[in-house]
Amino acid sequence: MGGDHGPSVVVPGVRDYRNRHGGEGVRFILHGNETAIRAEMVKVGLTDEVCIVRHTDKVVAMDEKPAQAMRRGKGSSLWNAIEAVKSGEAGAMVSAGNTGALMAISKLLLRMSAPGLERPAIVASWPTPKGYTAVLDVGANIESDAAQLVEFAIMGEAFMTAVHGVAKPTIGILNVGSEDMKGHEAVREAARLLREGGFGLDYYGFVEGTDISRGTVDVVVTDGFTGNIALKTAEGLAKFIAALMKEALTSSLIAKLGALLAMSALKRMSQKIDPNAINGGPLLGLNGVVVKSHGGATPGGFGAAIRVAVELGRSDYMEQVGVNLQRLTALLARPNFSSADEPVGENTQ
Amino acid sequence: MGGDHGPSVVVPGVRDYRNRHGGEGVRFILHGNETAIRAEMVKVGLTDEVCIVRHTDKVVAMDEKPAQAMRRGKGSSLWNAIEAVKSGEAGAMVSAGNTGALMAISKLLLRMSAPGLERPAIVASWPTPKGYTAVLDVGANIESDAAQLVEFAIMGEAFMTAVHGVAKPTIGILNVGSEDMKGHEAVREAARLLREGGFGLDYYGFVEGTDISRGTVDVVVTDGFTGNIALKTAEGLAKFIAALMKEALTSSLIAKLGALLAMSALKRMSQKIDPNAINGGPLLGLNGVVVKSHGGATPGGFGAAIRVAVELGRSDYMEQVGVNLQRLTALLARPNFSSADEPVGENTQ
Repeated sequence: MGGDHGPSVVVPGVRDYRNRHGGEGVRFILHGNETAIRAEMVKVGLTDEVCIVRHTDKVVAMDEKPAQAMRRGKGSSLWNAIEAVKSGEAGAMVSAGNTGALMAISKLLLRMSAPGLERPAIVASWPTPKGYTAVLDVGANIESDAAQLVEFAIMGEAFMTAVHGVAKPTIGILNVGSEDMKGHEAVREAARLLREGGFGLDYYGFVEGTDISRGTVDVVVTDGFTGNIALKTAEGLAKFIAALMKEALTSSLIAKLGALLAMSALKRMSQKIDPNAINGGPLLGLNGVVVKSHGGATPGGFGAAIRVAVELGRSDYMEQVGVNLQRLTALLARPNFSSADEPVGENTQ
Repeated sequence: MGGDHGPSVVVPGVRDYRNRHGGEGVRFILHGNETAIRAEMVKVGLTDEVCIVRHTDKVVAMDEKPAQAMRRGKGSSLWNAIEAVKSGEAGAMVSAGNTGALMAISKLLLRMSAPGLERPAIVASWPTPKGYTAVLDVGANIESDAAQLVEFAIMGEAFMTAVHGVAKPTIGILNVGSEDMKGHEAVREAARLLREGGFGLDYYGFVEGTDISRGTVDVVVTDGFTGNIALKTAEGLAKFIAALMKEALTSSLIAKLGALLAMSALKRMSQKIDPNAINGGPLLGLNGVVVKSHGGATPGGFGAAIRVAVELGRSDYMEQVGVNLQRLTALLARPNFSSADEPVGENTQ
């Protein structure tokens, strides 16, 4: 029921997923208003063999505060979909609804599997010349210490393998320079943990903002404050450049003619950075797969988010992450790895 | 002598400044190798009436560490140019040289005027549909507390008036959301100081990453870590989009023909976001005007950096900033404004 359009995008999104991504044997439980959902199912030709409908009248509004949604949300479509993951009936859930409520109710029902995280981390699939780079956290954990950053690295690595099929993802920590002594305590200590912690991760080193779109590494690790601002700054710039291009290409008759001729090439280009093609941000660090779709996604965009949920749910992502999170917990319990007692300065290298 | 090209860009840069920006009555002291400088002056037709040459053989290398440059840099062209600002002989200085060395020697010779800053703040002029937005700090102060953020606001506001001619600049603090309770302690406390501090600044509120390229406010205030990453992320994305466009517009004969027709419109567009047109980042918070040019700037880019230095040097920027910095110091000395003792939570609003 969530997002800007509810069932009129979610149900065609299921059809889109099946048409474009296959998903042999994947079945769907659609939570919400049965009449509205069934009307959409008829339109796009989806049957009960593929979609089970679970009726509820209750919805979490898009502007509801997370605390309110937690208190009053029980029995809503959002709540029931997460409950189905908890009970094991569903292998994953996708929502285009209220992000804060999704995060709060997911955490309440599923609990965190990453002990250092206050709330689930959001991962963005960032387009690069080589494909995609996973950037996390892009919004949930405002102040991240070294242990949290290492948790992001562990989860981002497993995500890249499960969803983007990268066999041995490389990992970088976002910083203001690539030299070891750059940045603040948290990034320097996280770098040390990743280098010396025995996680079996392919740690590359510090990367800078320019490296994200360059695809220097497969996973860019950063605190939720910086990650959110990097992502939104990029979104704002992309929109500005698109507006400038549109203005330029309609500024004269000759320019319009040129644009017409170059149209199909320009369209192929814009598909590479189309937000709908890269829709679907998993909330990482929970005991269960929960994927957030943009509220304004198209059916194609929602289908892409379903694909992310299916790939994560079918992979051994949870096990991979579990093993490395245990390693991290053991490591932090060792006195010589305690970052609180023993700050890493320039001279300890 | 600094930058990738030394006098062969700096000297034509002076000529470019005079041709394009006027600068009636501005005279230049050029520090460095007299033979090399005079050869360039002859080429571009600059005489002793406009340019005084101060010979020195000593230069700070582009890869020299700041600490080393401070110890050994005395008498170098970089050092002498800053010394001339300190003595009052020069009203401002511009360098395309080693940024770390420029920052360290400027701080050593000129001293900070902003008491909260560890090192000078770097301000970027970010292109927007409305003109430019000043973003600071973009790289020097890694961990910024509330007082530092307020200093950035004070300096950014005066910079926008002096260099971009905005009469009453609006100021936003970069955050992960626009609501009062969003973000960490430092941004919330800085917001309170700006709202209640009586600086006479037009404080708008929190802004998000998307707001930078949108031009929502004239000055975007952020810590040096986040600001550096936002700027470099944007640079990386702009390069990626440019590469995609080039690829698209050369992908077929028809596309090439289209590109040819749209060429002049596309060129006008790219000028709006040309790094050379917005070259010249002042180091703010010093007792004197010091402007950093990109090391790889063209003569036109160096001319733009000279313009920034002249506008700042001729304005009452230093006085404006001085008055508000004194207000801030007085404010922080009042017990009820001490951020260390009294954290601002969600409930204190």
